Amino acid sequence: MTDSLVRLRGALREFARDRDWDQFHSPRNLATALSVEAAELLEPFQWLTDEQSRNLQPAARAAVEQEIADVLLYLVRLADKLGVDLEQAAFAKIARNEGKYPVEKARGSSRKYDEL
Amino acid sequence: MTDSLVRLRGALREFARDRDWDQFHSPRNLATALSVEAAELLEPFQWLTDEQSRNLQPAARAAVEQEIADVLLYLVRLADKLGVDLEQAAFAKIARNEGKYPVEKARGSSRKYDEL
Amino acid sequence: MTDSLVRLRGALREFARDRDWDQFHSPRNLATALSVEAAELLEPFQWLTDEQSRNLQPAARAAVEQEIADVLLYLVRLADKLGVDLEQAAFAKIARNEGKYPVEKARGSSRKYDEL
Amino acid sequence: MTDSLVRLRGALREFARDRDWDQFHSPRNLATALSVEAAELLEPFQWLTDEQSRNLQPAARAAVEQEIADVLLYLVRLADKLGVDLEQAAFAKIARNEGKYPVEKARGSSRKYDEL
Repeated sequence: MTDSLVRLRGALREFARDRDWDQFHSPRNLATALSVEAAELLEPFQWLTDEQSRNLQPAARAAVEQEIADVLLYLVRLADKLGVDLEQAAFAKIARNEGKYPVEKARGSSRKYDEL
Repeated sequence: MTDSLVRLRGALREFARDRDWDQFHSPRNLATALSVEAAELLEPFQWLTDEQSRNLQPAARAAVEQEIADVLLYLVRLADKLGVDLEQAAFAKIARNEGKYPVEKARGSSRKYDEL
Repeated sequence: MTDSLVRLRGALREFARDRDWDQFHSPRNLATALSVEAAELLEPFQWLTDEQSRNLQPAARAAVEQEIADVLLYLVRLADKLGVDLEQAAFAKIARNEGKYPVEKARGSSRKYDEL
Repeated sequence: MTDSLVRLRGALREFARDRDWDQFHSPRNLATALSVEAAELLEPFQWLTDEQSRNLQPAARAAVEQEIADVLLYLVRLADKLGVDLEQAAFAKIARNEGKYPVEKARGSSRKYDEL
């Protein structure tokens, strides 16, 4: 079966084409919208403790799920417009992070790689 | 073959477990980190015109690709911690958006659904 | 003596005029830059506990101070471009918040006004 | 007359004390809330052209004015909690920017100082 990220890309292309929205979907506009959605996703967490954030009320969790979806949709769309292969970029980043955060140095620390 | 989002989730679980990082990965912390990465993704676009953003220089495009990957990694991780099925949430959101933005009303307009 | 916000506005007007930067300072661009700076201000806090955030190391505190300044500079500039009187807008907002968060209902609660 | 930033700081201290909100106002929480408000300020601009952003409709402009105020309130509060003198920090940053962006090199360019 076709991969989910590829199917999402196709569905969003069709969605935009049907509405003649490609004119609005410059990378700049999409990056801006993505950033706004990421803040909407952060909003319900802003006064919660870490512990509370692990136990969201059903209404908050449902709202968060929709914001997560919004971020993914803009991300897929932005990657498409820039010709970025999301899957490949993500796995390449994990490989890079393995180099920056070797297990023996990074274990149990939240410090940045240049402060380890 | 296993879907890319499922494989990413698995790779990130292993990455965190190897480093004992689950203690830092509260939903609140992950939502915060995601928001910071989204702004880093926006940063290279901030003084560009729409047209310039469609024709990034190679160095800028490579940087943007890495920031896109960072956003996806935190998004996959946050969804995992909240038990959100990313693929299902994304397609459910597209279906909802089809209801909010009917083709005949939304065509060629960048207005919000409640202002169409 | 002239108020600090008025002096900042004047200094930033001069800074932009000397560099012929008014062409870049559309409200949209300034709001984008401000949002990017706000995320840079958030970045050093992202893995800290509340308690740690109250006791920043000197290097972190100095970095945070500069990011706070960046946010204020873009905010003063954006308000100027939109003809917003920052001081008046801020005190008007406090008055509005007093109505939304009456002392007797809001005491000790971090809930939003529509959930009190 | 007392400077506006000092009066705002005093009004916000009183507001928080009356509601017993100092417990929620860790620097981390305030930086998060500020970042969320900055995105709310960006939201009305996300699909506008630069030109449209210079000519906001009255309703949009009024909404933007309130978001600008929200950002300033959290910024004043965060600076207070960290012991940062906002006015001094802002003028120090302008002086630093003058060094990073000399008039003769920066004129008419939107490039970052390290790319001038």
